[in-house]
Amino acid sequence: MVAFVDKKIRIGIAGYGNLGRGVEYAVSRCEDMELSAVFTRRSPEELQVASGTQVYSFTEIESHVDNIDVMILCGGSKNDLPKQGPELAKFFNTIDSFDTHAKIPDYFEAVDASAKPNGKTAIISVGWDPGMFSINRLYGEAILPEGETYTFWGKGLSQGHSDALRRIEGVRNAVQYTIPVDEAVDRVRSGLQPQLTTREKHTRECFVVLEEGSNKDEVEQTIVTMPDYFADYDTTVHFIDEKQLKEDHSAMPHGGFVIRSGKTGDNNNQVMEFSLGLESNPEFTSSVLVAYARAAYRMNRAGDTGAKTVFDVAPGLLSIQSAKELRKHLL
Amino acid sequence: MVAFVDKKIRIGIAGYGNLGRGVEYAVSRCEDMELSAVFTRRSPEELQVASGTQVYSFTEIESHVDNIDVMILCGGSKNDLPKQGPELAKFFNTIDSFDTHAKIPDYFEAVDASAKPNGKTAIISVGWDPGMFSINRLYGEAILPEGETYTFWGKGLSQGHSDALRRIEGVRNAVQYTIPVDEAVDRVRSGLQPQLTTREKHTRECFVVLEEGSNKDEVEQTIVTMPDYFADYDTTVHFIDEKQLKEDHSAMPHGGFVIRSGKTGDNNNQVMEFSLGLESNPEFTSSVLVAYARAAYRMNRAGDTGAKTVFDVAPGLLSIQSAKELRKHLL
Repeated sequence: MVAFVDKKIRIGIAGYGNLGRGVEYAVSRCEDMELSAVFTRRSPEELQVASGTQVYSFTEIESHVDNIDVMILCGGSKNDLPKQGPELAKFFNTIDSFDTHAKIPDYFEAVDASAKPNGKTAIISVGWDPGMFSINRLYGEAILPEGETYTFWGKGLSQGHSDALRRIEGVRNAVQYTIPVDEAVDRVRSGLQPQLTTREKHTRECFVVLEEGSNKDEVEQTIVTMPDYFADYDTTVHFIDEKQLKEDHSAMPHGGFVIRSGKTGDNNNQVMEFSLGLESNPEFTSSVLVAYARAAYRMNRAGDTGAKTVFDVAPGLLSIQSAKELRKHLL
Repeated sequence: MVAFVDKKIRIGIAGYGNLGRGVEYAVSRCEDMELSAVFTRRSPEELQVASGTQVYSFTEIESHVDNIDVMILCGGSKNDLPKQGPELAKFFNTIDSFDTHAKIPDYFEAVDASAKPNGKTAIISVGWDPGMFSINRLYGEAILPEGETYTFWGKGLSQGHSDALRRIEGVRNAVQYTIPVDEAVDRVRSGLQPQLTTREKHTRECFVVLEEGSNKDEVEQTIVTMPDYFADYDTTVHFIDEKQLKEDHSAMPHGGFVIRSGKTGDNNNQVMEFSLGLESNPEFTSSVLVAYARAAYRMNRAGDTGAKTVFDVAPGLLSIQSAKELRKHLL
């Protein structure tokens, strides 16, 4: 298990929210890595990190180029990564979890333009979707070209939909769960290749804390008719108090299924399925980021530079074991 | 979808049994490939292949080096591949499904010694186990280093166990199904990380046709006490006639589950699962072989030669789509 551990891979964390904390935990479980520094936009003195690692201001991140092998970008896709990704890939090998699907091609080009001329390796859009789910969609389509791919999400807490609820006037706090419809999943698993509408695949369940004096019926009506977010789904709204919300809905579970249903030969059904059942969505994403940091380090040492995605990374590069050990023990 | 289709990849099939027929079907579903030739150890005149492709004798295979980009080896792991793999990798890029787990390291070295000095790319042990199951074991261990990996097989027809039954005196014909125990799978999925014995994980079900005059009880006793194959399992034996066997047990279904159950953060359970439900085991294996033929072709053109396993192949190389298309449509 120690073939690659000649020198520990030095990891930096850029941004210390749920994802950053998850990376800190995950690195501590990897005997070939060490956490070198955490960078924050808050004032560093105010931030105490679990592992006791030194915290620095984001403004001085460039002065750490010689102490960090891979920088893991733990900011958000909306406001942080579009700027940080291309900027930091000039100085570091990077990993990020950029997940705005429609903007991935542009983001890739921007990061590549920074990484390549500077000899850095930057793996973008790492996590589970995009990430492990994408890989499984690809394996499914490549192996069973005649077929259909289905992605179901949940049961899990959706950050984007929870935020949408919180923006409604009269809502003080809220969480939203995305729930795959069992019957739809079963039909897909059976090999039938059904055509499924948005409404048939998922339901949405909301737990809402109202501001004092606001109107239940009005808020509920606003939710269930909200375009894009809720109008196309069967949505249930529960009104609860802040205490209940804290007690019962503070965890961040998620998961889902990628199912490829295809035909081979004359007419044989073949079903491939990948699923995740996660008690902590950010901690799992962090664990994926850390495994890909190992790959980025190795690819960079091998001269494979520029922007990359999970599609470009051979599975073996993620493992602490050598290719020889993997052939012997895991194949 | 056509970015890579400048020139079709020319495929050869070495050995035309269930696997070879499956490859023939699978190639016909890939618009960037064409089947160039089938090689057999039988006399070529006697063999009529479904697609009408030209059939040649194995003895003249070397004279086809200029007409074939990737040779897919469809022989068996016991008697064919140990010789054919190293021999053919001198002349062709090859794909095979060598699945004798304990002998993989030696086989890899033998194939590498042929492929590398001759500038060929040879991907060994491709299929679903070894193959897709191996990849999922690797992803699981790399992403969740603190955890347990479980592999369940079935429900499916096991060729090796069926052969063991047929070697018993008094048995005329037989098939054996390997069946995962639902309760064990559920316990693993729950994140409990149970310790499971061989007996707790799988049961075995045999359908046996007796030779005339042989003794049911004796045969049954021989089966259920057979070391390695049946003694460690709860085994059920059904005696049926040849007609029933043909009618109900001629298909070759298989499948199974690879489950990684791990912990992140303080103590959160995270479960990753990959499963296959296959109506035709050989046709699915063939479909995996053909996808990896695309990768072998591309790796060879990029100068990446020698023996490889699925661990060495970036997922994107399997797809007919270009890296740019994959980022846009599949990530």
